[in-house]
Amino acid sequence: MENNINIGFASDNYASVNPKVLQRLLKVDQGNQIAYGADESSSELAELVRERLGSNVEVFPVFNGTGGNVLALSASLKKYQGVICAETSHLNTDEGGAPEVVAGIKLYKVSTSNGKLTPESILKECFGFDDLHRAEPKVISLAMSTETGLTYTIEELILIRKLADENHLYLHVDGARIFNGCAALGISVWEFIERVKPDIITVGGTKVGAMLAECIISLNPEISKNIYRLRKSYMQLGSKQRYISAQLLALLENSLGVELAGNANAQAYRLYEGVKDNQYVKVRYKPSANALFVELDSVLLEELQKCYRFYLWDESCNLVRWMTSWQSTEEEVDSFIAKINEISSNINN
Amino acid sequence: MENNINIGFASDNYASVNPKVLQRLLKVDQGNQIAYGADESSSELAELVRERLGSNVEVFPVFNGTGGNVLALSASLKKYQGVICAETSHLNTDEGGAPEVVAGIKLYKVSTSNGKLTPESILKECFGFDDLHRAEPKVISLAMSTETGLTYTIEELILIRKLADENHLYLHVDGARIFNGCAALGISVWEFIERVKPDIITVGGTKVGAMLAECIISLNPEISKNIYRLRKSYMQLGSKQRYISAQLLALLENSLGVELAGNANAQAYRLYEGVKDNQYVKVRYKPSANALFVELDSVLLEELQKCYRFYLWDESCNLVRWMTSWQSTEEEVDSFIAKINEISSNINN
Amino acid sequence: MENNINIGFASDNYASVNPKVLQRLLKVDQGNQIAYGADESSSELAELVRERLGSNVEVFPVFNGTGGNVLALSASLKKYQGVICAETSHLNTDEGGAPEVVAGIKLYKVSTSNGKLTPESILKECFGFDDLHRAEPKVISLAMSTETGLTYTIEELILIRKLADENHLYLHVDGARIFNGCAALGISVWEFIERVKPDIITVGGTKVGAMLAECIISLNPEISKNIYRLRKSYMQLGSKQRYISAQLLALLENSLGVELAGNANAQAYRLYEGVKDNQYVKVRYKPSANALFVELDSVLLEELQKCYRFYLWDESCNLVRWMTSWQSTEEEVDSFIAKINEISSNINN
Amino acid sequence: MENNINIGFASDNYASVNPKVLQRLLKVDQGNQIAYGADESSSELAELVRERLGSNVEVFPVFNGTGGNVLALSASLKKYQGVICAETSHLNTDEGGAPEVVAGIKLYKVSTSNGKLTPESILKECFGFDDLHRAEPKVISLAMSTETGLTYTIEELILIRKLADENHLYLHVDGARIFNGCAALGISVWEFIERVKPDIITVGGTKVGAMLAECIISLNPEISKNIYRLRKSYMQLGSKQRYISAQLLALLENSLGVELAGNANAQAYRLYEGVKDNQYVKVRYKPSANALFVELDSVLLEELQKCYRFYLWDESCNLVRWMTSWQSTEEEVDSFIAKINEISSNINN
Repeated sequence: MENNINIGFASDNYASVNPKVLQRLLKVDQGNQIAYGADESSSELAELVRERLGSNVEVFPVFNGTGGNVLALSASLKKYQGVICAETSHLNTDEGGAPEVVAGIKLYKVSTSNGKLTPESILKECFGFDDLHRAEPKVISLAMSTETGLTYTIEELILIRKLADENHLYLHVDGARIFNGCAALGISVWEFIERVKPDIITVGGTKVGAMLAECIISLNPEISKNIYRLRKSYMQLGSKQRYISAQLLALLENSLGVELAGNANAQAYRLYEGVKDNQYVKVRYKPSANALFVELDSVLLEELQKCYRFYLWDESCNLVRWMTSWQSTEEEVDSFIAKINEISSNINN
Repeated sequence: MENNINIGFASDNYASVNPKVLQRLLKVDQGNQIAYGADESSSELAELVRERLGSNVEVFPVFNGTGGNVLALSASLKKYQGVICAETSHLNTDEGGAPEVVAGIKLYKVSTSNGKLTPESILKECFGFDDLHRAEPKVISLAMSTETGLTYTIEELILIRKLADENHLYLHVDGARIFNGCAALGISVWEFIERVKPDIITVGGTKVGAMLAECIISLNPEISKNIYRLRKSYMQLGSKQRYISAQLLALLENSLGVELAGNANAQAYRLYEGVKDNQYVKVRYKPSANALFVELDSVLLEELQKCYRFYLWDESCNLVRWMTSWQSTEEEVDSFIAKINEISSNINN
Repeated sequence: MENNINIGFASDNYASVNPKVLQRLLKVDQGNQIAYGADESSSELAELVRERLGSNVEVFPVFNGTGGNVLALSASLKKYQGVICAETSHLNTDEGGAPEVVAGIKLYKVSTSNGKLTPESILKECFGFDDLHRAEPKVISLAMSTETGLTYTIEELILIRKLADENHLYLHVDGARIFNGCAALGISVWEFIERVKPDIITVGGTKVGAMLAECIISLNPEISKNIYRLRKSYMQLGSKQRYISAQLLALLENSLGVELAGNANAQAYRLYEGVKDNQYVKVRYKPSANALFVELDSVLLEELQKCYRFYLWDESCNLVRWMTSWQSTEEEVDSFIAKINEISSNINN
Repeated sequence: MENNINIGFASDNYASVNPKVLQRLLKVDQGNQIAYGADESSSELAELVRERLGSNVEVFPVFNGTGGNVLALSASLKKYQGVICAETSHLNTDEGGAPEVVAGIKLYKVSTSNGKLTPESILKECFGFDDLHRAEPKVISLAMSTETGLTYTIEELILIRKLADENHLYLHVDGARIFNGCAALGISVWEFIERVKPDIITVGGTKVGAMLAECIISLNPEISKNIYRLRKSYMQLGSKQRYISAQLLALLENSLGVELAGNANAQAYRLYEGVKDNQYVKVRYKPSANALFVELDSVLLEELQKCYRFYLWDESCNLVRWMTSWQSTEEEVDSFIAKINEISSNINN
């Protein structure tokens, strides 16, 4: 590992476990409990979801976001149906081909200006439902927040939900960063689900302070039935599930998840404020969640990489991603900004 | 959940986390670390494996046994090749069809008398390598310990390894309970691998005191290369991998895993000793690991189920599985035996 | 290719096209017709099937038996469901792993004494419908005639149909040699379907005089809907479908298919009669269709292979398959018997 | 079927079989021949390919274009690798999702201006070879001629071949209309392959006068080995293969395939010449093969559909496809042009 390299702005996956999440996990670590989801924490989690969202709604803890997404989508699709998603979606670009390789899912990828789907862009692939030569589009999948660090407004989402209904499509939310999305909107995950009414949503805990905890919430009983069976087949059924459920409870019971994500978002915004007027930094999108995409001057990029680790998104234009986490602090952000400014001030001098 | 039902002999998956494993996990829970396996614990684990087994040997932490097995097998197989395994193997009977559903793997299942493969039984499917009408057999997969609670001797395994070599087959060990198997043989996992030389082995930590920790150890660089890529596609790549690696380190660094499994085995044997002469209990196999299969008198079965939870394996003959874990104690076993004796003594009185 | 080797008893796939089938095919070879099944012959075929079997019944021409079987089964199964079939079924042994590789289908293979499923053998895998650790059994697949050259009686099939109904299973008939099966029973394919009521049946024309013509007949509208879409995805939708439909019409419109298969069956029986008392030939099963399995004396095997081509089924016991076709003649059979007798009479002389 | 509707410009799949192809097919229809490719015609075909292209080159007859493409690609890809193709490719838009559904193949689809890939467009997806989060791009797949009725020049193809080599990618040619492509270039299929050096090419006979005949030609022995096995698994191995091979021989032995495609191309060009100056017809691309894409005035579209059948490609702009075949005649084209002119002259009158 590189020494003396600050890795705090590379990914929210780098963060450790939030103490409150850990405490909740440790609480369930006693004695025997039934495996594969018949434990007390999993029951509590299921009960919580039903209380908040209705008695038909089911929750399925899984291991990771890729697993959650692929399982949720496969359970929603007949064998000849496909998914409409953004070209930049994690589903398309960063799951090692999992949707295709594991589940044989055809992705209809649409171009977007900023990573967010719109009714217009969706409609470009929303046709040919009866054409046997074309895999039938059946699910719209969007991420909240997006891979580009942006969030949908509830109004935008309701329009997409409406479009889905009109075309008999399901709506899937890739919620690997749903807590960041909700924090940006100032609402809880429950309220988000109630207002947007996705058929299925994957809820990611790992990026906001869990150790390893994701789940699928399904509002559609037919899809739930498929998930119930396919979770095992898709290698996402943990034996000692109580430890995953406990983490999810910690994030969902109170407002902890949204609160932790809120800090991540705030730090990203602080970073944005700190660099947006820097002539060597060109902000690609104004962030509403916890990722900031900027194009960097070549010298700045080179120098900054000597002391900070972050991902180069597009080599051709020096586009990089800076990302904050639940663990990021104002001091760290300010120190990062200071370093950026320091390097910048030496350019062309 | 049923109250007043003792669930201590239902499954080793019911146990909680061993304190030493937990301690090791908590040790890595500080600050940022690179995700997806480039963290310090994962490096340590990789280094440990190389030190013990050779510089070509690689380790891949995964989420669960199903994931480990399917990934290891798929990485070993071309698209037109299949696996020879026991009809009673977990792979065939208890993974929700994962090998077929996720990875398109054909299983050649052979009958066995007790769940253990023999060269003779393997040879029944070991043909037709050039026949394009037949999926080419390419891997022999066996479990150590088996689902029947038995273990192979090293000599038996060396014979199967030899058979594999003669037929250009790979040998895969489903080691969901490899620690139990090694404890039965009185050797470490390292020694097991060195002597048996499987091409790939899945090493299960979850059943011997981990929270959620399995890994694949690959002795074959070509297979390793495939696992490296497919682990993501098969939804088995954890972002905060340090927490999984730490648990594996706890079990593998010293003799902790074998030690914990040794207790499970010993308690199963104690249970066996306590019931083997009971006329209402017919032992199917003398256990060498931590599972005991017995056929119960119907009254005994019915009465025992009122106070103990365990799995009915074959309804037609009242075959049940009793299983011990790292957490089982002599007192619990003795109390279980006492209850069995008490019920038995009342039968036909 | 070997010269002077008679290949007439190796496989019914070796035969050429029956003149009446060819004539029907040539009749449709004029001018433009709409592709992908909207041609006149395909309409006629669909109409014929509806007339004979009911307005809900649909027919789907495909390219070959493997394609027909895999498509029919996949269309009948949810992603987590599997198939119960005989261990010796073509599906299991001779499709290059297609059910698993292409469609992710789990096969529950049951042992049989002669290749025919029985309610008892099926029941061995007919459990665990609600067990999420087990792929749910959903289809019983049997072949008529079987790979062993045998046929089911209608009574036997009705018992299996009943078992299927009681367990909410579908019944699939692999009819690669359904015409041979029907010829043995002295009934038409229509009568077979009406009496047995399979949910889906693949009807094979290629082995009884077609060039390349198979189809799936589906009595279940839900399955039909899936086949309609999946036939394209599974690469079984021919563009110039009229040429396939014409062949099927030739075989199905009148009694041609059953008639041609009847000759194949009769010649197999004639061969059986001619060798059954030969001490160097041990008949495995008395044939009711067009395949005869016999164990041969080693010398006889060796000598016979010098002048006749046929398949060695099990090297360990010199089990071979002799097969007749629509094209086989009494003279050829008698000449084959004469050769067998000639060699036999020289053994040990 | 609609009466009085001329269907001659809807698809080259509507045409019947060319008499010379039929004659060649009928020639092989005598007596028994070994099945599954060990027949005389298949041997002749294999020999022809080796003679023309080298002793390492193998040919594999298959049933249809979808089958040929999916099989060729899957045989070229490891389980974690993907394909770069045009967004408008048949592979992506018209195979019912077969690459994904059957073979788990990830498609990296690139936008093009006219359906033809360029080095620039390919490079947009040609990255991340070592990134385990991204399915590794491994094959470039292009169609000759394209779905848009265009052809690549040899020079363009050599540039793409060079790009493939530089990036260790394979080049696949979807040759469902390779004869049309070669006719446009005035070269044979052999010369095409020699100059472009694709690793694999599917050669389509069905659209240029065959009944049902496609094949894969593989220049890469490693890929050939995979095709040899997977052809059965992917349900593309015909038992009576001689009938397919005979058709391919008819098209490939002499210049028949190119000649027939040449007529199709010439008639498409004649049609283009006849309508290009019509103000109600806006030609999208100047055709070099046998498809013409035009945007039609709404009245013209509506009236023309009353007497001619053709496919509406994009409803939003009245884009339609007119297609000619080996069977199209100058008289038919002229009559079609006359009808277009007649309707046009009445518009706004």
